[in-house]
Amino acid sequence: MVVDNAAEGSSGDQQKSKKALKKEAKEAAKSAKKEERRQQNARTQDEDGEDYSTGRYGNLPMIQSTEHVSRTFTPVHDLTESLAGSDVWVRARLHTSRAKGKQCFAVLRQQAATVQAIIAVGETTSKAMVKFVSNVSKECIVDVEAKVVQVPKPVVGCSQQNVELHVSSLFVVSAAKPQLPLQIEDAARRDEEEGDGLHIRVNQDTRLDNRVLDLRTPANQAIFRLEAGVCRLFREILQSKGFVEIHTPKIISAASEGGANVFTVSYFKGSAYLAQSPQLYKQMAIAADFDRVFTIGAVFRAEDSNTHRHLTEFVGLDLEMAFKYHYHEVLNTIGDLFTQLFRRLQKEHVGDITTVGQQYPVDTFEFLDPPLILEFPAAVAMLREAGVEIGDEDDLSTPDEKLLGRLVKKKYDTDFYILDKFPLAVRPFYTMPDPNDSKRSNSYDIFMRGEEIMSGAQRIHDPDFLTERAKLHGVDLEKIRAYIDAFRYGCPPHAGGGIGLERVVMLFLGLDNIRKTSMFPRDPKRITP
Amino acid sequence: MVVDNAAEGSSGDQQKSKKALKKEAKEAAKSAKKEERRQQNARTQDEDGEDYSTGRYGNLPMIQSTEHVSRTFTPVHDLTESLAGSDVWVRARLHTSRAKGKQCFAVLRQQAATVQAIIAVGETTSKAMVKFVSNVSKECIVDVEAKVVQVPKPVVGCSQQNVELHVSSLFVVSAAKPQLPLQIEDAARRDEEEGDGLHIRVNQDTRLDNRVLDLRTPANQAIFRLEAGVCRLFREILQSKGFVEIHTPKIISAASEGGANVFTVSYFKGSAYLAQSPQLYKQMAIAADFDRVFTIGAVFRAEDSNTHRHLTEFVGLDLEMAFKYHYHEVLNTIGDLFTQLFRRLQKEHVGDITTVGQQYPVDTFEFLDPPLILEFPAAVAMLREAGVEIGDEDDLSTPDEKLLGRLVKKKYDTDFYILDKFPLAVRPFYTMPDPNDSKRSNSYDIFMRGEEIMSGAQRIHDPDFLTERAKLHGVDLEKIRAYIDAFRYGCPPHAGGGIGLERVVMLFLGLDNIRKTSMFPRDPKRITP
Repeated sequence: MVVDNAAEGSSGDQQKSKKALKKEAKEAAKSAKKEERRQQNARTQDEDGEDYSTGRYGNLPMIQSTEHVSRTFTPVHDLTESLAGSDVWVRARLHTSRAKGKQCFAVLRQQAATVQAIIAVGETTSKAMVKFVSNVSKECIVDVEAKVVQVPKPVVGCSQQNVELHVSSLFVVSAAKPQLPLQIEDAARRDEEEGDGLHIRVNQDTRLDNRVLDLRTPANQAIFRLEAGVCRLFREILQSKGFVEIHTPKIISAASEGGANVFTVSYFKGSAYLAQSPQLYKQMAIAADFDRVFTIGAVFRAEDSNTHRHLTEFVGLDLEMAFKYHYHEVLNTIGDLFTQLFRRLQKEHVGDITTVGQQYPVDTFEFLDPPLILEFPAAVAMLREAGVEIGDEDDLSTPDEKLLGRLVKKKYDTDFYILDKFPLAVRPFYTMPDPNDSKRSNSYDIFMRGEEIMSGAQRIHDPDFLTERAKLHGVDLEKIRAYIDAFRYGCPPHAGGGIGLERVVMLFLGLDNIRKTSMFPRDPKRITP
Repeated sequence: MVVDNAAEGSSGDQQKSKKALKKEAKEAAKSAKKEERRQQNARTQDEDGEDYSTGRYGNLPMIQSTEHVSRTFTPVHDLTESLAGSDVWVRARLHTSRAKGKQCFAVLRQQAATVQAIIAVGETTSKAMVKFVSNVSKECIVDVEAKVVQVPKPVVGCSQQNVELHVSSLFVVSAAKPQLPLQIEDAARRDEEEGDGLHIRVNQDTRLDNRVLDLRTPANQAIFRLEAGVCRLFREILQSKGFVEIHTPKIISAASEGGANVFTVSYFKGSAYLAQSPQLYKQMAIAADFDRVFTIGAVFRAEDSNTHRHLTEFVGLDLEMAFKYHYHEVLNTIGDLFTQLFRRLQKEHVGDITTVGQQYPVDTFEFLDPPLILEFPAAVAMLREAGVEIGDEDDLSTPDEKLLGRLVKKKYDTDFYILDKFPLAVRPFYTMPDPNDSKRSNSYDIFMRGEEIMSGAQRIHDPDFLTERAKLHGVDLEKIRAYIDAFRYGCPPHAGGGIGLERVVMLFLGLDNIRKTSMFPRDPKRITP
């Protein structure tokens, strides 16, 4: 971390930089302990006698912005045959290295891109240098100067298969501890291979405990790029439909649905709660004439659910929209949102989808345009035909949902569908009853690969009727007064819903656990790192 | 809310709709209380004897999605002379109305657009209908059928100045309480006018207590559309620079800066905290090879600060970026982000800026390209020259910042500048010291109109040096172990910062209070609505 063994002899910007680095090293050397380490290091490099590679390798001092340097670095994914013969600088991680006689074969990694690098004893490369490189720990960040060389046979196991780097300089920019709690190769291994007993499997807690390492796998690099894509497309598509982005408070004074499953916050001398949903605020924005709104933000659920699909904190993609006569104006907008989203994901993130599929193989996500809208009674009929006992006004159990997903996939060939007209009895007090069937409601859930990713409804916008329904549900009117009052000064009919981001990404990619699609997941047992 | 007095005689879609509405009214009438109200209402409308306008006005039953209706509504801002002579349907709020003999002059409002509407006794419009319309409360949502008529003189006070509507039907879609806690006209009045004592001033608490009404003013409609624009542009510009959006947890296990000003959350059987900043997680994303990341999300500060610029919960626009040699690579990226942001706001949101300026007059926001970067010692010299006593290693007080803003504006003609190289002593332990000046640091604040909107720095990416600095600051190492550990497996040098969204919007628009740019503000005294 501390020693600069770069020597004189280079020119221009590089020289300026090295002088500066020397200055830094000098300062650092003031610390006795560091000085001692420096000398040890120097001895290692000198053990072969005179070292003609001095200045071509070593540990750089910590980069502290001593000065501007105008060196150009080439991204690893740009290392192709078109650069053959050029000299390049690359800053990347040492993914693996293997000494073999007078050579060291290394793989350099930058995000999902990898390239082979060879350091061989020769005119400018001393034995000491090869030894130094061989001893650099995996995951160190290194600056490498090298010639790009076209190879006769594709380099198996690297993303850049047609070239390799012949290294002339190598400096450690940032060191990694030699002992890693998990190996990137193990964490990146294809799912199918893990079962055969020959390979080390990295369990989920180890991954999450060491998320900084785990996130470096190509699949994780791709998962979170795709997740960013879902947010980007959600916004772009809704903006093109006239929606306005809003931000809603997470700290709230009262829990709208009676206070179950809500986290309590100490708030100065009083207390408050964490919002389970932005719903009240989206609805207030509608009552305040914003017409169509969306918001992306943290949503909190104090449920002690330890399953593959529950988090205590997740990212909600929420929308709410005024309509003229029928909530299907909104439901069709939501349906089209998803159709466009899936189509554009498959086009604009094809590389990410492929990368994830290499570690976690799965069938391509299928959807219809326009999407399938199934009414609840039809779904119940399909389940009964398949032998499930279910009442007309029962909610679907999780196994029912899974089975229904398979039945729908078989019958309609879609992994995505909307289930409309849920029984009134299983929905919250603010859900608008179906005017044509007293046992149904104007509400819907949306499913991907048989799992729920969104719940929504037409909301009651009439304060008197809302009061009536709240009473019927035994809701404490005093606690929802602000909610009801929001509708007292005129509010257009409206509907909306909330989408769980991590679920959408998990199910689109066919992953088995929501912790794979939350960068730093929170569940009842985990609030670190 | 309940009575349908629409009669037979119309055709097509409209007829279908009315039939359906009658059906709904019938259902509603089952409730005795509602039936009573219906009869009262019917009597009112019949008091002039036979009413030849029956079916052209009244209260619609609650829109419950009884059926699909394909009526086209024209947006109010589309009502221009090009539509003169056409019949249109408009759904809008009754902004104001005034009966005058056999006529009623109304203004209809839809977001920031307003149009005059006239209901006059005539062949199809009865006295009873004019009376009904005259009695419709302000802020009710109404469906209006009307002919668009070009006017000889511009209609003063309406956004649609060249036309008016001659109304043939008017139905109340959603009723507002007759007594409003604030009048939209008062809440929308130009700032300068408020001081003259002739007009009612709506104070801030009344506004915020009745935010659903307050948000309906043209200025508020524009403020939050511009705020959405800031987020959109922040993302678009950073995405074009290769940044990836991430999401960071709000619930955390330990407070990274020693636990001051942090809200505590009950977390199942234990407790947790609300994140004051996404910084640790952005940095972990950098250590995990995401290279350039941003995140937009809620940030929490348990500070008992009751000022015009502090909130306990605000929206953070955060970014973090790996660099090669010097943190100015990042600072220049941030500078260009703002330059592009301001330029595009002034172009793409010119209408919103004008609308806000009509209520809150202010000078246009000025900025330089590239932005001014001022070093701390130079700022201190400017302040001293202006008579301020300030030590070399002192932080700036809020009045110093304001004064400096004025001095900079005078000297450089910019409302935006970057103050670089803050004294090391006033920055947190994780800030990288300046290698060339032991009293300075590689850190910066950014100012708009003399107020801070962003703070940032190069972070220490070396775990040993970070430990050393934490010890020096007396930080409990056990509490920041996860933070330090994030850098043990190699991390590139990086810098970043956090921007307060509400401050950017407040200062760009020259507003005087941050509560004007938070849709539902949270401060030590307010967590409602």
